[in-house]
Amino acid sequence: MPIDLRSDTVTKPTDAMLRAMYEAEAGDDVYGEDPTVNRLERVAAEILGKEDALFVTSGTQGNQVAVLTHCVNGDEVILEADSHLFYYEGGAMAALAGVQTRTIAGDRGALPPQEVAKAIRGVNIHFPRTRLICMENTHNRAGGAVVRPEQMKSVYEVANRNNVPVHLDGARLFNAAVALGCEVTGLTRYTDSVQVCLSKGLSAPVGSVLAGSRAFIQEARWWRKKLGGGMRQVGYMAAPGILALTEMTSRLAEDHQRAHDLAVGLQKLSLHVEPVETNIVLVHTDKAGLSAEQFLAKLAEKGVLAVDFDETVVRFTTHRHISDQDIQNTLAAVEAILHPSRSTG
Amino acid sequence: MPIDLRSDTVTKPTDAMLRAMYEAEAGDDVYGEDPTVNRLERVAAEILGKEDALFVTSGTQGNQVAVLTHCVNGDEVILEADSHLFYYEGGAMAALAGVQTRTIAGDRGALPPQEVAKAIRGVNIHFPRTRLICMENTHNRAGGAVVRPEQMKSVYEVANRNNVPVHLDGARLFNAAVALGCEVTGLTRYTDSVQVCLSKGLSAPVGSVLAGSRAFIQEARWWRKKLGGGMRQVGYMAAPGILALTEMTSRLAEDHQRAHDLAVGLQKLSLHVEPVETNIVLVHTDKAGLSAEQFLAKLAEKGVLAVDFDETVVRFTTHRHISDQDIQNTLAAVEAILHPSRSTG
Amino acid sequence: MPIDLRSDTVTKPTDAMLRAMYEAEAGDDVYGEDPTVNRLERVAAEILGKEDALFVTSGTQGNQVAVLTHCVNGDEVILEADSHLFYYEGGAMAALAGVQTRTIAGDRGALPPQEVAKAIRGVNIHFPRTRLICMENTHNRAGGAVVRPEQMKSVYEVANRNNVPVHLDGARLFNAAVALGCEVTGLTRYTDSVQVCLSKGLSAPVGSVLAGSRAFIQEARWWRKKLGGGMRQVGYMAAPGILALTEMTSRLAEDHQRAHDLAVGLQKLSLHVEPVETNIVLVHTDKAGLSAEQFLAKLAEKGVLAVDFDETVVRFTTHRHISDQDIQNTLAAVEAILHPSRSTG
Amino acid sequence: MPIDLRSDTVTKPTDAMLRAMYEAEAGDDVYGEDPTVNRLERVAAEILGKEDALFVTSGTQGNQVAVLTHCVNGDEVILEADSHLFYYEGGAMAALAGVQTRTIAGDRGALPPQEVAKAIRGVNIHFPRTRLICMENTHNRAGGAVVRPEQMKSVYEVANRNNVPVHLDGARLFNAAVALGCEVTGLTRYTDSVQVCLSKGLSAPVGSVLAGSRAFIQEARWWRKKLGGGMRQVGYMAAPGILALTEMTSRLAEDHQRAHDLAVGLQKLSLHVEPVETNIVLVHTDKAGLSAEQFLAKLAEKGVLAVDFDETVVRFTTHRHISDQDIQNTLAAVEAILHPSRSTG
Repeated sequence: MPIDLRSDTVTKPTDAMLRAMYEAEAGDDVYGEDPTVNRLERVAAEILGKEDALFVTSGTQGNQVAVLTHCVNGDEVILEADSHLFYYEGGAMAALAGVQTRTIAGDRGALPPQEVAKAIRGVNIHFPRTRLICMENTHNRAGGAVVRPEQMKSVYEVANRNNVPVHLDGARLFNAAVALGCEVTGLTRYTDSVQVCLSKGLSAPVGSVLAGSRAFIQEARWWRKKLGGGMRQVGYMAAPGILALTEMTSRLAEDHQRAHDLAVGLQKLSLHVEPVETNIVLVHTDKAGLSAEQFLAKLAEKGVLAVDFDETVVRFTTHRHISDQDIQNTLAAVEAILHPSRSTG
Repeated sequence: MPIDLRSDTVTKPTDAMLRAMYEAEAGDDVYGEDPTVNRLERVAAEILGKEDALFVTSGTQGNQVAVLTHCVNGDEVILEADSHLFYYEGGAMAALAGVQTRTIAGDRGALPPQEVAKAIRGVNIHFPRTRLICMENTHNRAGGAVVRPEQMKSVYEVANRNNVPVHLDGARLFNAAVALGCEVTGLTRYTDSVQVCLSKGLSAPVGSVLAGSRAFIQEARWWRKKLGGGMRQVGYMAAPGILALTEMTSRLAEDHQRAHDLAVGLQKLSLHVEPVETNIVLVHTDKAGLSAEQFLAKLAEKGVLAVDFDETVVRFTTHRHISDQDIQNTLAAVEAILHPSRSTG
Repeated sequence: MPIDLRSDTVTKPTDAMLRAMYEAEAGDDVYGEDPTVNRLERVAAEILGKEDALFVTSGTQGNQVAVLTHCVNGDEVILEADSHLFYYEGGAMAALAGVQTRTIAGDRGALPPQEVAKAIRGVNIHFPRTRLICMENTHNRAGGAVVRPEQMKSVYEVANRNNVPVHLDGARLFNAAVALGCEVTGLTRYTDSVQVCLSKGLSAPVGSVLAGSRAFIQEARWWRKKLGGGMRQVGYMAAPGILALTEMTSRLAEDHQRAHDLAVGLQKLSLHVEPVETNIVLVHTDKAGLSAEQFLAKLAEKGVLAVDFDETVVRFTTHRHISDQDIQNTLAAVEAILHPSRSTG
Repeated sequence: MPIDLRSDTVTKPTDAMLRAMYEAEAGDDVYGEDPTVNRLERVAAEILGKEDALFVTSGTQGNQVAVLTHCVNGDEVILEADSHLFYYEGGAMAALAGVQTRTIAGDRGALPPQEVAKAIRGVNIHFPRTRLICMENTHNRAGGAVVRPEQMKSVYEVANRNNVPVHLDGARLFNAAVALGCEVTGLTRYTDSVQVCLSKGLSAPVGSVLAGSRAFIQEARWWRKKLGGGMRQVGYMAAPGILALTEMTSRLAEDHQRAHDLAVGLQKLSLHVEPVETNIVLVHTDKAGLSAEQFLAKLAEKGVLAVDFDETVVRFTTHRHISDQDIQNTLAAVEAILHPSRSTG
């Protein structure tokens, strides 16, 4: 078995999750009759500090449903230039919702509030209407960077002053809260809607939750249906999600510790590593004279999997199946790549 | 517990399905590494007689991904005026794919080939391009009507002559095959792509499969991702799906028998019933001097659930949880509604 | 010079129009500073009985801007199955606005109000929202049929009861008013927005006007800009439009008379002709043993141009450049086609 | 009469243009029978070095038709962050075409080729497909900056290597050619399609031309029709356009000289002015302790009109109606604003 540091999405459910799935009471969720889904949505709404919540099949679906619900065709959305919504969702905002993306380069993932203020469109027939601002926390392509509550707050204040709602892509929001040592509501209070993934570090097999006001979630159900996200006996999927939200968040600290250890070890090997705040480690491979692709190929030979982020940047992600020993073995593998003679000794 | 004849979507998984789910080997399907999903897709492709297949979260998603994959924005799609794709999918064909729907009234759900031929657009700058023809079998709003192979064939021939591909909404395709006493390939040979539901009469908790050529499915994966249908450890959902396709299809005959019995009984009560070919019974309530809504309310009081299809049409759907006794009890309930004095005796 | 009965769109401007164009005072209309455009819009609003109006480059643009302004993506629009909006605008409603078309077969172009009432969607997560009802008057594919005020009224009442706005494609609305002997406001009072063409029988070189409430037109300007319909010194185009609206409407009666004469003549030649109410004559060619295409080819040889509407239906359209003599010559040409020996005598 | 330096779009047609309009031979362009439009399209294709061309009602329409023709929904387009297509066209690329905008900050309007290369997406199910690269020359928001042929060439080479077509927004392309002292084909050889405006410095009342390969223009006609840009006797509009292309381009040098004079004068008044290459002057107002809005208001009081580009940036645009004396008067007005006491002396 390789050491799989590609993503925390590879996590398998816990035994308790499998049992919860097996024993779940399910019903037809399109009729609103799946008690387990209903419970998950109540629990999620409460934890996230919102009136209501909606189970969706993926983070992408949660984000896209949010955009479709907040906006109409012809609107513009402000978001970070490297955000998942813009970078990794196949251009769906334009393809499905007909909204234009106005990207702003962030500071380690955080939108600079003054740039946001400047990007909000005035009333002019040549302009689309600015209808939504999206944040991402933790920010994946910024290396699992944590956006601080005060950073979120300042963007939220700009948004409020301009009557523009805010959506938060919180695929790894619990990582942010754990890193900050705060409740997630310390972050979600600065957004109108939020999407959190159950299937990354929290280890549920599939699914995400979208939360917001009651009216927002009511409308979101319509768009989820159009996307084909309305499912039937989906309680079997929701049951592990409840455990993900209620029992799996505090353990993320371990993943963070191991990511930290990995980063320290890589730096000792003289590699340039981006600051590590949560469970993601971005390392530059150019100093080793290798492209990201070459580096990954050599790692794979030694039984370690990661992903490329850029031509010379590799991402490692720690998660529940990564042990301290795996980190040591990974560091040994990297050392062997950098210093073939030494490590074979 | 009420007798729930609202839809075959209310079916719960079998014990074997629950065990299969519990014991499933799962992986990250976005990386193509979920062995159970891969197996489901191979099994489905083979049964449906297509090169490849794709697990999707619902029939709506399978249909919409098909439309998005066959068409580009600005195209036109020919489909039956009461088809699920047009009637029950929230206008998604226009909203997501930007394609115009050209509806044709069918003959018990079957598209008249000469009408299809007429509706295919010529080359004229005022016209959209006809890019897809959709059929539905069995046809839900036509009362579970079966479209015969020769009917499908004649539409397929019109389509081929005009170089227009065909998609089949086969949400209940196995019901059609069972009613016809043929293999599903006897029907799917007359379509380029097909969607079948695992979660209706076949009893899997969620999901559908979209099948077609290898190139088609490859492209469909991109659109499924945009809709948020790309999931992670989805093998837990796919495992019951394999059983649905391989072990649950022949038992649909029982549902058909019970629908038949229900229809005969309702006719004896002097109600006008549409012809019954599979597991759906459409009954007109106007003879009873009731609107569909009133009829349903009275039924519900007596512990029987169904749905309204029209102002004076009610739909009953039989499925795995409906027994012969349930049919008798349903008929007794209807009789009590129609003849209050007699039945209370 | 052939006798061109293809369409009233072939009409050239009058000398007065050319002079008006030459002498027009123009400005930058994107800045709202073109006095001639502003005057055209005021005049049109007054004649059409609406608060405000907008110059657009074509009937299609006026209709599409109306749809985009009334609706948002994901909505549904009810309209006649043979309407211009559905049939001849390239599928633009779906392509540009993301709205689904719900077509109803009309009675000589008039929407049956009870069918409209049935087609309006209830609140159900499976349904799009019904956001607009479109009428067309006169109705082109129904043969220039006039929709009576009381027919419009009954649809408008259904719409109002359901809080659904109404748009009127009045490309040839003045033909309807002339045929009815009423003011256009006798028709436009039963719609929320209306588009009329300046360039058909009214003879302006290009352009249409969209009229509605002040708020509606304000929003429509935004969509016109997105479609590229915001132009600069467009007063040169607007100047003939003012004459079209103020001086050219009453003369349409002549076109109607000539269409009537043509129809009577064709019937005398034993051809089946659809009822003629305005300036359009639909004639069936099958009795003559000819397809529409064959018939048109033979006509063209004799210097008469028309268009095919269907495989065996040809449309003639009278207009300002068609004289009584042209009608006689056309009838002679048709007779020569039907009875080659006789006519050559 | 104020000195109107807001835009070269305010230019009125020349007397020759008005006469050409008055005397134009027109026909029904939707039937392809307007001889003047046909001539304009031939002339434009030849001047722009492309196989075919299409008259459109505005630069926005030409650009949007180009995007709709090159792309399908779900694609991504790379373009400059301050380009007209992204900034001033109402978000139409997403609203109408369903394509995502990938913006890159340019170097005085020129796309850095290595940034373009990096932004082209690899084949990955998470990504949209990069289907088009757009350039703009001269670049409006960069202050009328000229993109050099070698800059265009290097982007075009990147595009060709990746099989991505290129569109050029050449609303003011002739200004670029005049500034460079080259033929426009020296620029259009580095693009697959190009849009040029007839109505800015070239003084035609309305319209633009889109040029490209024969197949491209054929397809573009379909999209123009959907946008409502298909017009009837549009030869009256095309006639001045022919003069714009054939007789008005060389005189742009005068506008450039006056813009240069204005810039020099403003610098002498100690204002910070962006480099001037063509007919646009961007001046920063913060040194004068004024916002752009305040500056414009004071200018307007003195009979000079300009527009704001940013909170502290004002744009002046020279054109055919601006004389040397107007430039002197404008400078005097600015001086009076900056030094109230001195100027009143």
